[in-house]
Amino acid sequence: MNFKISKKEFLDALSLSSRAISSTTPLPSLSGIKITVNTDSLELVSSDSNISIQTAIKKGEENALIIEETGEIVLDARYILEIVRKIDSDMINVETIDGTLVKIYGGNSEFKVNGMEAFEYPAISFDINEENSFKIKTAVFEEVIDQTSFACSDKETRPVLTGVNLKAGSGKLHANATDSYRLASKTLDIDSDIFFEVTVPSKYLNEVCHAIVNEEEVTIAIDNQKISFLFGDSIIETRLLDDEFPDIARLIPLSFGQKLTVSAKELSRAVDRASFIKTDGKNTIKMSIDGEKIELTSTNQTMLSSFERIAVISYEGSPLEISCSGKYLQDALKAIDGEVVTINFSGELKPMVIKKEGDDSLIQLISPVRTYR
Amino acid sequence: MNFKISKKEFLDALSLSSRAISSTTPLPSLSGIKITVNTDSLELVSSDSNISIQTAIKKGEENALIIEETGEIVLDARYILEIVRKIDSDMINVETIDGTLVKIYGGNSEFKVNGMEAFEYPAISFDINEENSFKIKTAVFEEVIDQTSFACSDKETRPVLTGVNLKAGSGKLHANATDSYRLASKTLDIDSDIFFEVTVPSKYLNEVCHAIVNEEEVTIAIDNQKISFLFGDSIIETRLLDDEFPDIARLIPLSFGQKLTVSAKELSRAVDRASFIKTDGKNTIKMSIDGEKIELTSTNQTMLSSFERIAVISYEGSPLEISCSGKYLQDALKAIDGEVVTINFSGELKPMVIKKEGDDSLIQLISPVRTYR
Repeated sequence: MNFKISKKEFLDALSLSSRAISSTTPLPSLSGIKITVNTDSLELVSSDSNISIQTAIKKGEENALIIEETGEIVLDARYILEIVRKIDSDMINVETIDGTLVKIYGGNSEFKVNGMEAFEYPAISFDINEENSFKIKTAVFEEVIDQTSFACSDKETRPVLTGVNLKAGSGKLHANATDSYRLASKTLDIDSDIFFEVTVPSKYLNEVCHAIVNEEEVTIAIDNQKISFLFGDSIIETRLLDDEFPDIARLIPLSFGQKLTVSAKELSRAVDRASFIKTDGKNTIKMSIDGEKIELTSTNQTMLSSFERIAVISYEGSPLEISCSGKYLQDALKAIDGEVVTINFSGELKPMVIKKEGDDSLIQLISPVRTYR
Repeated sequence: MNFKISKKEFLDALSLSSRAISSTTPLPSLSGIKITVNTDSLELVSSDSNISIQTAIKKGEENALIIEETGEIVLDARYILEIVRKIDSDMINVETIDGTLVKIYGGNSEFKVNGMEAFEYPAISFDINEENSFKIKTAVFEEVIDQTSFACSDKETRPVLTGVNLKAGSGKLHANATDSYRLASKTLDIDSDIFFEVTVPSKYLNEVCHAIVNEEEVTIAIDNQKISFLFGDSIIETRLLDDEFPDIARLIPLSFGQKLTVSAKELSRAVDRASFIKTDGKNTIKMSIDGEKIELTSTNQTMLSSFERIAVISYEGSPLEISCSGKYLQDALKAIDGEVVTINFSGELKPMVIKKEGDDSLIQLISPVRTYR
């Protein structure tokens, strides 16, 4: 194995690959990146057995790839990334010098690192079910994940709740996430008749979003066992969550008794100011709402309390007193990202539903907290 | 107690005060800031019993301080800082409403916090021994601490080594710090005949450096028990370390066999590139030096090695092979901050002494590491 490559392109590919590297892998070879040098391309594969990444660099002007000798090797991900980052030269040379001993050099620096044989690396199929795939703009996909994934559970007690449920049919894509106390639900049109339902671990979806750089479009392919994301010369595939996702239609109240319209910014700032007032690590906001104002109070046993008053834009229904998690309210307002929001209530015991005014594509639902007075 | 004050000035004073607050104080009142409202000034006191801060805000145009009623109270530092930071208003109002219950308000927000009686706060004397004091430019003082304090020990096995030794006499100030493997030694002229020797915990010296903002000069006063730093309307005093500081003159070799002159930047970059190659968490650099070049190698058992070659500017003496901690070499080069450095050696077993070319005011000494070949 012997090749030269532009430092920038190589570092970008290694950085992408390292997203699948776990520091706690049971399989030694998975702490490495498998590098395969073909006659006209370089291929990097990495995996933590739940998420796997394949990325190729094909000979081209920008990457200045020159292949002297083909071959393959597995190199420790931390070492190779650090070495290529540190070498002070535009071009990086990589060369097998003896068995699995590899020399990496450029500028004044020369590193030697002992790799592993490529046959020790597990076989990973990056096969794609092209019939069961659709294309989506990267920016749109990232927005969907941003607006929903934060609502996933961070506890493993019900694993399926740690994922975002993606459901497609009749030209629509639905993304739902819930930790059973709140729900984020997004619906959008897609240019495909594809039909599927899968639940994808939210941490891998976030990795995918961070990994896609400078690609306008991503192809998403669904399989029984996995979901694959194709962009540029790269594929990321991740495992799915098996259990059945809860029926979110049953969680959303059918009718509402009160409807509030308020400035998102003013509400968000008032909630933020009280956010440090915590009991058992949690901030609870009590809202007293009538036709004119919202009064927000937050207390921390007997030590500390806050009081805010903000004006409503409009309010329909009888006055209401309701409490909820300040963090959940903040998260929902941030995801909605609108100037004016509407909040629908069905009394103090039922979930509230928050939307951007005039936009039904994104719903944020929050269960109230019961407070004892 | 009842006063109004500009948010900015109050927040600055509270931020300064909070530098003395420890999250693990055994005395409940020390988790608070003591606020004393006099007829024409506000005084804040904070302490973790090792470092204590007193800062005053006197009535003036900028701070817009208006005092309606004098009084004193102790308020939890985290709460008061967070409240004042969060209130969205240029002016902050603070008012005792019932016993130790204090209302803090501004803009749309109103916070209530339960404080502690001021008499529960320990008495701290901020007395200054003016006869035993001198003035120094803040920038000069900060440079002295920057160039030496990193060389202190971070282990409590010999407490005196966690401090910087400050020694004055005959119009000179000497600052020395050592962890017994390296030494940083700075000498400078001061405009005073003061005579003293104290060792000050380095973490408090760093706090003092960070605390002094917008003050050109600081007055340093020495006492048997403490050192005090006076700037603007603030005083910071910290305890001293009791044990005798080692005699640093004995640590520096009297004669040298080899003298190297080299570009600090090139050496520093070469050391940095190998810094991730660690054995037992430590990076060791082996330097082979002759009249033309330095070859730097670093190895990590059998997995990984690096090799660098840089040119020397000049070298006197027989060729030398010496190993030392890469981190210590990096720290020393950073503190020296010169384009060209000279390194004096006395063979491979004695400490090396690093200086900026043509400047004897700052000495960085590093003990070699014995390597087994």
